[in-house]
Amino acid sequence: MLAKLVPAVEVGASASTGGMKLSQSYQCYPTLSRDISTSALTALLALTLSLLIVGSLALDIIETPFATLEDALGGSATFISLAASYFAPERVGVVGVVGEDFPERAWDLFRTRGIDTTGIEIVPGGKTFSWHGRYHYDMNTRDTLATNLNVFADFNPQVPKHFKSPDFLVLGNIQPDLQRQVIEHLDRRPKMILLDTMNFWIEGHLASLKRTLKLSNALVINDSEARLLIEHPSLIVAGRKLQEMLAEESPRIVIIKKGEHGALLFYDEHIFSAPAYPLEEIFDPTGAGDTFMGGFIGYLARRNSQDYEDAKRAVIYGTVLASYCCSKFSTEGIEDLSMELIHDRFRALRTLSSFELEEEMVI
Amino acid sequence: MLAKLVPAVEVGASASTGGMKLSQSYQCYPTLSRDISTSALTALLALTLSLLIVGSLALDIIETPFATLEDALGGSATFISLAASYFAPERVGVVGVVGEDFPERAWDLFRTRGIDTTGIEIVPGGKTFSWHGRYHYDMNTRDTLATNLNVFADFNPQVPKHFKSPDFLVLGNIQPDLQRQVIEHLDRRPKMILLDTMNFWIEGHLASLKRTLKLSNALVINDSEARLLIEHPSLIVAGRKLQEMLAEESPRIVIIKKGEHGALLFYDEHIFSAPAYPLEEIFDPTGAGDTFMGGFIGYLARRNSQDYEDAKRAVIYGTVLASYCCSKFSTEGIEDLSMELIHDRFRALRTLSSFELEEEMVI
Repeated sequence: MLAKLVPAVEVGASASTGGMKLSQSYQCYPTLSRDISTSALTALLALTLSLLIVGSLALDIIETPFATLEDALGGSATFISLAASYFAPERVGVVGVVGEDFPERAWDLFRTRGIDTTGIEIVPGGKTFSWHGRYHYDMNTRDTLATNLNVFADFNPQVPKHFKSPDFLVLGNIQPDLQRQVIEHLDRRPKMILLDTMNFWIEGHLASLKRTLKLSNALVINDSEARLLIEHPSLIVAGRKLQEMLAEESPRIVIIKKGEHGALLFYDEHIFSAPAYPLEEIFDPTGAGDTFMGGFIGYLARRNSQDYEDAKRAVIYGTVLASYCCSKFSTEGIEDLSMELIHDRFRALRTLSSFELEEEMVI
Repeated sequence: MLAKLVPAVEVGASASTGGMKLSQSYQCYPTLSRDISTSALTALLALTLSLLIVGSLALDIIETPFATLEDALGGSATFISLAASYFAPERVGVVGVVGEDFPERAWDLFRTRGIDTTGIEIVPGGKTFSWHGRYHYDMNTRDTLATNLNVFADFNPQVPKHFKSPDFLVLGNIQPDLQRQVIEHLDRRPKMILLDTMNFWIEGHLASLKRTLKLSNALVINDSEARLLIEHPSLIVAGRKLQEMLAEESPRIVIIKKGEHGALLFYDEHIFSAPAYPLEEIFDPTGAGDTFMGGFIGYLARRNSQDYEDAKRAVIYGTVLASYCCSKFSTEGIEDLSMELIHDRFRALRTLSSFELEEEMVI
């Protein structure tokens, strides 16, 4: 295993070369250079939780043409953190709220994936947020049959002390006031703040959303929501105008998700068009957008980077994770992937979209 | 100028190296190898009109949010032949029908672009086919206000003698019986038969359309029409099933056009996902699909090729030509392009969609 930790720390070539012993929770970085002391390193790691995710945790009811699932593990923070965990293991923390009914298998899953759950509040006697949705035959459209906010109605995100200096922050699709509250509670400004939102906030809380956008570096949004927010039919114009709504610093990143048509990344003056992974069957698209976001930010957190080439790759990794998400129900598709499987689809996407100008074409 | 003519003929490096003198009409291929005689070559060229296009020629009324145009030059054969002419100059022939009102400026344009119009029948006293359409604000949807078939109602495609052995044949969006009639009138089977169709034929003439598909190697179709024909929500499944409807030989090519989302090329077992060119403003999308098809087939005709790498590039050239088509009204955007402008957008599309797996990514 190789990993980029923090810029100043060198990482050795393989676990077998030895190196100092780290605490159990950081054992995935076993071969750090010997020239900094164990205690200093432990302190450094404690300071640099790399990725903080704030969002919902849910037990959903999902109806698809194939099957109906009850108590399906869901919620934006769930999908984002699981996807990110493949890139930034042991350094992902979640802030959210659940009821006492949140099942042991979910806690087990977070533990197995090395996700820090100390920021998840458990409301005594409470019930976990639940969304009940039904997908149409084409799997691209769905009806919400019920939204039971339960404990999520009073969600007041509290950021644990050791989460207060993340390098990367993801604010899942929650009330824009709450998103801003999280930013204000941090000890320092993260390297990147990535935002999600939805039509409900665009239509009903636009002023607040605009204030949150002005504090953020990056936005992930659906094509229909981008058009709703910008009121222009061209996604290219919408992407450009959305960039202008972000914090006035580089990079300004907007990603417009287009479902089966892939995604557009607007990065400062650049545009990158990413293909979708060509799935013949989609079993459950729930969480695919969040999973995309988790793969995207997880990869950047791992690289400790926000440069353009990494951002393009991050979009592809997000696409790969989202494709695995859609291939099974609920979180099943992203619970137990290998990096080999992830890289297989990364390469497949490259093959799918690469072409060259022929050398002899001179007219 | 360099050009690949027929496989046996070598092409020199530049016009300045001399080479034999060809007749005026083939002066764009000035540096052919000296080892075949002029008369043999002329005979060969006369035999191999490279690209035959059958379709409509029209004088449309186009309403967009920007302007209304009357007597706008249109029709599938018009857009296809203009686009193809950039790649296969002097070797493109059109079969179609017009009335006496077909304007001199249209004949001039075809002449300037080196398009052979001897296959266009002029009906004495007749009026040219006319479509009257209105685009909505988003330019992605339109209403047909009137379709005046005029002379097109009795279109009975007659293929002139020197058009009867084309290497590449495009059958624009006309009655499937007529498409088949053209194939049957040829002296030999073209290397590639490319078909267009529409919902009208899918819904009303399905059996005939299926018979025409079985004679063809390649189909270009809209996403909504692909779903209509295959009755499956997944475009990947639709593309695969459409391939099975084509002639049982390699290659089997299906291109699903997705408008602002680009195109999917299904080529035997391969899939290629092409991005759209990111236009901020679309002035008139009329003919963009036909222009795409013209760029696609024109490039293959020029290369005298149907291999996969060329087909991928051909999709990109088609995308480039279609983007220029949308940037102005009617045919204006594709009347006077340079290869430099075409290659500019080809390279821009490559930049837009290229990414690499980072070398050091080993987890």
